[in-house]
Amino acid sequence: MSRTIALLTDFGLDDPYVGQMKGVLAGKAPDSKVVDVSHGIAPFCISQASFFLASAIKHFPDDTVFVSVVDPGVGSGRRIIAAEFGGCVVVAPDNGIIELAEAYSNGPIIVTDLSEIANKIRSSSTFHGRDIFAPIAADIACGKSLESLGPKLPLRDIVRIGLKKPLWMENGVETIVLHNDRFGNLVLNIPASQIMPERMSILCKNLTADVGTGDVKRVSCYAELESGVLGLIVGSQGFYELALCQGSAAEKLHFGPGDSIVLKWGSV
Amino acid sequence: MSRTIALLTDFGLDDPYVGQMKGVLAGKAPDSKVVDVSHGIAPFCISQASFFLASAIKHFPDDTVFVSVVDPGVGSGRRIIAAEFGGCVVVAPDNGIIELAEAYSNGPIIVTDLSEIANKIRSSSTFHGRDIFAPIAADIACGKSLESLGPKLPLRDIVRIGLKKPLWMENGVETIVLHNDRFGNLVLNIPASQIMPERMSILCKNLTADVGTGDVKRVSCYAELESGVLGLIVGSQGFYELALCQGSAAEKLHFGPGDSIVLKWGSV
Amino acid sequence: MSRTIALLTDFGLDDPYVGQMKGVLAGKAPDSKVVDVSHGIAPFCISQASFFLASAIKHFPDDTVFVSVVDPGVGSGRRIIAAEFGGCVVVAPDNGIIELAEAYSNGPIIVTDLSEIANKIRSSSTFHGRDIFAPIAADIACGKSLESLGPKLPLRDIVRIGLKKPLWMENGVETIVLHNDRFGNLVLNIPASQIMPERMSILCKNLTADVGTGDVKRVSCYAELESGVLGLIVGSQGFYELALCQGSAAEKLHFGPGDSIVLKWGSV
Repeated sequence: MSRTIALLTDFGLDDPYVGQMKGVLAGKAPDSKVVDVSHGIAPFCISQASFFLASAIKHFPDDTVFVSVVDPGVGSGRRIIAAEFGGCVVVAPDNGIIELAEAYSNGPIIVTDLSEIANKIRSSSTFHGRDIFAPIAADIACGKSLESLGPKLPLRDIVRIGLKKPLWMENGVETIVLHNDRFGNLVLNIPASQIMPERMSILCKNLTADVGTGDVKRVSCYAELESGVLGLIVGSQGFYELALCQGSAAEKLHFGPGDSIVLKWGSV
Repeated sequence: MSRTIALLTDFGLDDPYVGQMKGVLAGKAPDSKVVDVSHGIAPFCISQASFFLASAIKHFPDDTVFVSVVDPGVGSGRRIIAAEFGGCVVVAPDNGIIELAEAYSNGPIIVTDLSEIANKIRSSSTFHGRDIFAPIAADIACGKSLESLGPKLPLRDIVRIGLKKPLWMENGVETIVLHNDRFGNLVLNIPASQIMPERMSILCKNLTADVGTGDVKRVSCYAELESGVLGLIVGSQGFYELALCQGSAAEKLHFGPGDSIVLKWGSV
Repeated sequence: MSRTIALLTDFGLDDPYVGQMKGVLAGKAPDSKVVDVSHGIAPFCISQASFFLASAIKHFPDDTVFVSVVDPGVGSGRRIIAAEFGGCVVVAPDNGIIELAEAYSNGPIIVTDLSEIANKIRSSSTFHGRDIFAPIAADIACGKSLESLGPKLPLRDIVRIGLKKPLWMENGVETIVLHNDRFGNLVLNIPASQIMPERMSILCKNLTADVGTGDVKRVSCYAELESGVLGLIVGSQGFYELALCQGSAAEKLHFGPGDSIVLKWGSV
């Protein structure tokens, strides 16, 4: 059995793109299981993809080959890399997509520059996911070593998106929304390992205006929330989430990926 | 080859949730084929999931392990069960999701209470699909017996949603919509085995108001319907469906899952 | 290992339909890999499906069995066919779905009439994808010969949709939109092998009205486009595409599958 290949893109499922990538993989890695992480990343939203990748890695088999294609620079000169975290490998454009996985990784990360081998592949100029990423991932899944695919690249040289880290203040924290899910939960860039107070107030800051305030209660499951009350909960993705019980925190707050939030507590 | 694992959830495909469940399954049941029944159940809509499950079972391999996660009570004390129908097993929260499958099942149903073993699994409080249901389903798919997973539970003790059965009157029937599909067909809770008249009129009752009346013609395929005429057809899911030829009955009638409909015939 | 089976439908992923087809395939062709080309074809849009099929074939393994179910005539007397292109086989209703694949195929195409064998299968009248197409495709994937499934049919006898070919004029071309993708790119029915000028103007003709004009620049990747400028690019699907850099050409032009476009150049 070859290694599992996991796909993460912003292609959606209505177009022919994901199907063609899987067609290529069925031909080149016929013994690999191909699993979708998701294809629902907002078009070109590298920070959201970075969150999906970071939160997926620990739930997949240790030797999974991830193919992460959110690639606004396709056809330009951007690098293509393979980043090894423990046993798994991420094949991706060098555009910051691995930034959050790197931030929460404990072990060493080894980056290989695939640009030269990628340039040798005959390819469309608009769909490297199918023409370059998929065949390289298939090769890796079937046993090809990273050493044979290109030179090592110092980790400090790869591109960063500068995903905003939580800014801790005396009685509060400023952070960003990593993702809003189907149920309206807002995943915040605050790791679940952080201790948070019982009661907070929320100050929602967009770039241009404050858009709302409200009280937030720390709870341990949705069912502890009374109707209409905002909860802060340790979510399933390793981060705190803002939630409403059977309602949408995202709609209530008009928030989405990348937006800033301030949580305050104590005397303010 | 391990048993096929079939997934039915209200998670949608844009979030990281289904991908992570599949990641877990790829690790724990690497030889199982994992098939999506659907992830398009309306959030928390147990009655719709109940219909999807009931209609799927007979089209899958006899020994399929279904994982049905529509779980508004996640993190609360609700039970987790495995229900065996013939050779197949359904792993689900005990919230009524198997009710329609039970109603149309001919053989015995054996229910196992998985709550105790579930409580021993280290888990998030919001995503039991990944942390509890998927690993237990993987164990079953790989050969673990239900006896070893927990005690039997009397069928009468499981939770019911009380999905409304058709109410037969002298010249009519009151029933509910189980599902409206992409093509606008409305699946009604009237089994295909029932004999229905050639011509009916429809009375659409929501909880608060009658929303429309109209004539309905019983037909055996869409092509028999003239444009704009509502048809009653034996659908593919084992139930009668209201349909418009290349139009949406759901839009015409403003109907969705759970809504009541009265069909009348003869002298009314 | 059995042959790969690739699915192309207009069923969407929210309904139980695709899941049930895969359930049938899991039972009847357990060793086949089942891959989704897409289920996002607009309901009943045969021309769009024809494009998806034509562009998918060369990216899948040579012996793939495609099942293409966009089938407004389901339950009526329309024929069911298997069309062999090189090593791959397309199982589909005879409604024109293979027209574009045929137009761009170099080798011989052998068509088998499956209607008689299909009529022997006990089936719903509304879901032949599950009841007829899937089991026949499974048989083919597991090694059944086309000769054993029905008589040959002359290629000239199959149904055509009459997908409009590009109409070349002295200083321009009239063509149609095959598909608009998630990123707003408009795939035109102009093969990538055609040489196109550097600068064009666009005249957008719907059936009823001219809806806009604009300048178009031929570019080789999205990054070459200044913001707001329409580009004509050799896309990844073997056709020219109209694109905006990180914007939607489809929204700017209000265009979708089947719409006509005129590109003009030189003195007009």
